[in-house]
Amino acid sequence: MYNYKMVLAYDGTEFNGWQKQGNTKNTIQGKIERVLSHILDEEIVLHGSGRTDAGAHAKSQTATFNTEKEIECEKVLKSLNKKLGREIAVFSLERVNNRFHARLNAKKKTYEYRIWNSSISNVFEGRYMFQFEKNLNLKAMEDAAEVFIGEHDFKAFCSNKRYKKSTVRTIYSIDVKKSGNEIRLVFTGSGFLYNMVRIMAGTIIQAGEGHFSVEDIKEMLKSKDREAAGVTLPAQGLTLVDVEY
Amino acid sequence: MYNYKMVLAYDGTEFNGWQKQGNTKNTIQGKIERVLSHILDEEIVLHGSGRTDAGAHAKSQTATFNTEKEIECEKVLKSLNKKLGREIAVFSLERVNNRFHARLNAKKKTYEYRIWNSSISNVFEGRYMFQFEKNLNLKAMEDAAEVFIGEHDFKAFCSNKRYKKSTVRTIYSIDVKKSGNEIRLVFTGSGFLYNMVRIMAGTIIQAGEGHFSVEDIKEMLKSKDREAAGVTLPAQGLTLVDVEY
Repeated sequence: MYNYKMVLAYDGTEFNGWQKQGNTKNTIQGKIERVLSHILDEEIVLHGSGRTDAGAHAKSQTATFNTEKEIECEKVLKSLNKKLGREIAVFSLERVNNRFHARLNAKKKTYEYRIWNSSISNVFEGRYMFQFEKNLNLKAMEDAAEVFIGEHDFKAFCSNKRYKKSTVRTIYSIDVKKSGNEIRLVFTGSGFLYNMVRIMAGTIIQAGEGHFSVEDIKEMLKSKDREAAGVTLPAQGLTLVDVEY
Repeated sequence: MYNYKMVLAYDGTEFNGWQKQGNTKNTIQGKIERVLSHILDEEIVLHGSGRTDAGAHAKSQTATFNTEKEIECEKVLKSLNKKLGREIAVFSLERVNNRFHARLNAKKKTYEYRIWNSSISNVFEGRYMFQFEKNLNLKAMEDAAEVFIGEHDFKAFCSNKRYKKSTVRTIYSIDVKKSGNEIRLVFTGSGFLYNMVRIMAGTIIQAGEGHFSVEDIKEMLKSKDREAAGVTLPAQGLTLVDVEY
């Protein structure tokens, strides 16, 4: 058995998310598996570092897969990029230790949530942002973000009510960066629950509108109740930007 | 009569170009005219600084139109942006002197042609670039671009064979900018003939591949023959970036 690792990017606009589940058509995992299986003439199962939601993007996602025979990485990489089309780009492909697994070995992940804070569309990057016209108080957003830093039980910030495992995660940093009309929230953490980044981003934006105070957000964490936390922002503003091992 | 000027941007991917001609559906001019006519309850005819090709984009296009009654610019601007969707953004709308005309008064235009020089797709900006895998000699491209500077008869660089007016134009500058895998050609001139930027860009890229020397390009200009010049690159890499008055 041989084990390979790839680093890739995708525009998730037209896909039903990363993960192939049951009959879900048009997933990123499914598309790459199909192309890889064809190139290698062997059925390939691809493991991503984690799922990304339908409509969310990745600037740097990591995935691993096993093969029965050794492959010529450079040739396969070229062939993959030729066949995957403009929405998916594979930057690298290399053989790694058989024990390495994209999901199980991930130590840190970084996501960004991009907000276009204007009533005028962003014609060229709008498909990677959530457009929001109302005024936002940046200081209130920074203060709200600060509450999430550290180890917390994020049960209130998870959309999956049937999730049985631990909902404790560690957030290392949340940067709130403003540049022109764009506000970019950059989250780095040990891992993220289902919809957690989009709910934190929604809560931060609502704090920026004046709906929530720092105290309110502390209460949300304590409540462990999804109903207490803020809204889930749309997936199109969400991009996985890095996975560290 | 009142005269208004707007400055706007658009992602031309899904449009059949700027100009409404005969039965051409889904043009940028047509869409804005329809929305404006509806908002103002008056039939509006929009004059752009020039046509852009089907699939080409604009970061800053200028257009003018007349109305019978005076309009509230700020209100109309808001309403326009709400109704035009993500592909078109109107940055400003203001009343101007009745003699001002977007096309007739344009003094200088700047276009950029973006080349993505890699075998790996540019997932996030690829729709605004022409992807070209082969190695390109940047110095040869710069030397080729240099030939076009100044006043020349660009008849060989015009796709419209039935064009009866003067084909003499002045090119003020062509910058060849490389940044990572991207090569951006920025053309500033007094005006451009039909497909002229795309044919100059095609000729420059072919010079970068080693197909044409500086002497070859001088001969193309002299020939006044479209068959002698280089290929027409696809519209998707072309963006109108500025119009000066």
